[in-house]
Amino acid sequence: MTLTLDAARARDAADPLRHKRADFLLPAGKIYLDGNSLGALPRSTPARIARLVTQEWGEDLIGSWNTAGWIDAPRTLGARIAPLIGAAADEVLVTDSTSVNLFKLLTAACLARPGRTTILSEPGNFPTDLYIADGVARTLPDRRLRTLPADDIVTAIDDDVAVVLLTHVHYKSGRRLDMAAITAAAHAQGALVLWDLSHSVGAVPVALGACDADLAVGCGYKYLNGGPGAPAFLYVARALQDALRSPLTGWMGHDAPFAFTDDYRPAPGIARFLCGTPPIVAMGALEQGLAQFDGVDFDTLVAKSQALCDLFVALVDTRCAGFDLTLLSPRDAAARGSHLSYAHPDAYALCQALIARGVTGDFRAPDAVRFGFTPLYTSYEDVWRAVDILADLLATRAWDDPAFRRRVAVT
Amino acid sequence: MTLTLDAARARDAADPLRHKRADFLLPAGKIYLDGNSLGALPRSTPARIARLVTQEWGEDLIGSWNTAGWIDAPRTLGARIAPLIGAAADEVLVTDSTSVNLFKLLTAACLARPGRTTILSEPGNFPTDLYIADGVARTLPDRRLRTLPADDIVTAIDDDVAVVLLTHVHYKSGRRLDMAAITAAAHAQGALVLWDLSHSVGAVPVALGACDADLAVGCGYKYLNGGPGAPAFLYVARALQDALRSPLTGWMGHDAPFAFTDDYRPAPGIARFLCGTPPIVAMGALEQGLAQFDGVDFDTLVAKSQALCDLFVALVDTRCAGFDLTLLSPRDAAARGSHLSYAHPDAYALCQALIARGVTGDFRAPDAVRFGFTPLYTSYEDVWRAVDILADLLATRAWDDPAFRRRVAVT
Repeated sequence: MTLTLDAARARDAADPLRHKRADFLLPAGKIYLDGNSLGALPRSTPARIARLVTQEWGEDLIGSWNTAGWIDAPRTLGARIAPLIGAAADEVLVTDSTSVNLFKLLTAACLARPGRTTILSEPGNFPTDLYIADGVARTLPDRRLRTLPADDIVTAIDDDVAVVLLTHVHYKSGRRLDMAAITAAAHAQGALVLWDLSHSVGAVPVALGACDADLAVGCGYKYLNGGPGAPAFLYVARALQDALRSPLTGWMGHDAPFAFTDDYRPAPGIARFLCGTPPIVAMGALEQGLAQFDGVDFDTLVAKSQALCDLFVALVDTRCAGFDLTLLSPRDAAARGSHLSYAHPDAYALCQALIARGVTGDFRAPDAVRFGFTPLYTSYEDVWRAVDILADLLATRAWDDPAFRRRVAVT
Repeated sequence: MTLTLDAARARDAADPLRHKRADFLLPAGKIYLDGNSLGALPRSTPARIARLVTQEWGEDLIGSWNTAGWIDAPRTLGARIAPLIGAAADEVLVTDSTSVNLFKLLTAACLARPGRTTILSEPGNFPTDLYIADGVARTLPDRRLRTLPADDIVTAIDDDVAVVLLTHVHYKSGRRLDMAAITAAAHAQGALVLWDLSHSVGAVPVALGACDADLAVGCGYKYLNGGPGAPAFLYVARALQDALRSPLTGWMGHDAPFAFTDDYRPAPGIARFLCGTPPIVAMGALEQGLAQFDGVDFDTLVAKSQALCDLFVALVDTRCAGFDLTLLSPRDAAARGSHLSYAHPDAYALCQALIARGVTGDFRAPDAVRFGFTPLYTSYEDVWRAVDILADLLATRAWDDPAFRRRVAVT
């Protein structure tokens, strides 16, 4: 791999996705490596939102629930996410937040495995996953959350495990778990698996159907570019849909929501996992985020994600050696997501110094700097320039300046 | 009361809120009496959304979580709702949907009253309230949902009732319940009360603090004009906040969400009832809906709501007598919300015929036509013209035309 700026530019020139970058409104003069936290704004989104607000809401008002397809938005957007995660169109819904969807599916899974007491997860899983699991365990009788290192999960699954809850790509380390193997091990013991795809969807291959996956949730505002706090999605394998019941039995999950009957009767299929009235303006933003994948070959997207990460690792290896930067993420692209984390003794201050120089990554407590690579809009030149600035900062220790430390509140 | 068009116009001319109508983008040539289902678009909303999307998201990206106050939006918008419902600023949060918030607070209330098995509500309550209660009763051990006519609730509250769940203003009849009396009766038996304010907030006096109310939820897209599927709100009396635990223990309700620790520790105060990442674009729309109340005297607003309803009732009494239209709502303004329902043997077709003539109300199964009056933008002339068209339709039975019935799918 040639590691010059010219080589990076040559790769951009040869990138089959290079035209996609212009479809996003990226901030001038900055290198944005945080699309795994909040995806950038698609150029088409402001106009779509304006039309939705002014025409569909302002002019057509309640009629838009039918004429503009508002009432179907959870299903139509779910169907657009489905091919990104290897699911069928009628297995995915866009609804609520990732946390709320975790609660729905985790509770439904526990209730579908009566007599089994354990929700199994890994320590250091994304906090909301562990917190929601704790909430489920406290709400249902005789359930407990048990955590074990990811490598010990497969052998620990026994007939007391109701559900295994894992994040496919770890939010910090970027490690990608073996969905097929873990799912098979759980099924062999009669347990279900719930996958959090928040750091996978839109940048990493996910094959829920091929892995015989049971349940999944994921985030709309990272690689899907749906905007801050965008609605999340959930997946329930078709074979499980009518056997599971959401605890959050809101009217939109009713078999006949507008019959206004007193008794709850869950809708057949995936619709029973809806709850309240869908957030239409936010749905419009997510719709445009998903539209960015139209016409994009997914293998090409994944290959670029891996190449961007590989280039970053190679550049850091070469230019940042000896500066206490330790790669926390796997070197093997097949075992990794689309972001990289590095431990550093002064990670918070380093992250702030990078931001001050125009490189946006993020800090993750206690000691990690994280860089995300969104193949739709991150360029190879972005990667080169980011490492160039990183190397300069490490060499000069610019963050040691007392005035800088006071300004960014490093103690 | 003089019931001429000129008299209605004179009342508009004298209306201290008449300037507010111009702050909304109302559809030309239509009379919109469905603001109790979906509030109209504030004129300031499109520009606010555009700035939020293009500047805060597009340009400033993740920095906006702090610099644009995104992370505080649930609390800052909650604090703006608080004075509309007689609550303190730190007792209200904007978050999730009404249905999800019902689940949180109903479950928390049940868990705070161990040993009590009953959730008490009324038959014909808004469906999602009953459905969520059913979901809570199925999820927790040994709980049941019991429904009794509203007039029988007070005497039925006993020491087996954990929580009474009632809608303050009934979605169909518009009947307003006596919050103070029911709350006192529940407290006398050690039970909690959860009020659904969806059809009250923004048009009807609500005095949660003065009534010693425990818990409430409400909707952002009706009289608060927050847009289709706007985020909802919840209220927890300050004295209860640290004693209750939400079952939906998402990371935003954690005491230190960005410490990324494995163990859930609920935030002190109202923040523990947050769950996932807040929907920022939708929050921006609700912010503008709430801004419409700035500088509006609430007593004036309530007086206009009552006067609009009273005029509608008087006009229907006078001009629609003998046409099988039966008022389902209380005649006494103090016992009513800001909408009116009428039963009619052919209610669905009548509603469609009204829409075809430019009057938007809505049909509620099985036999009701419902008209909502939003004092911020509904005019007395709107009321007069709506009843004029209603009277004409009833006299001509325009909906009996077979071609019309086929077109609007009346069987």
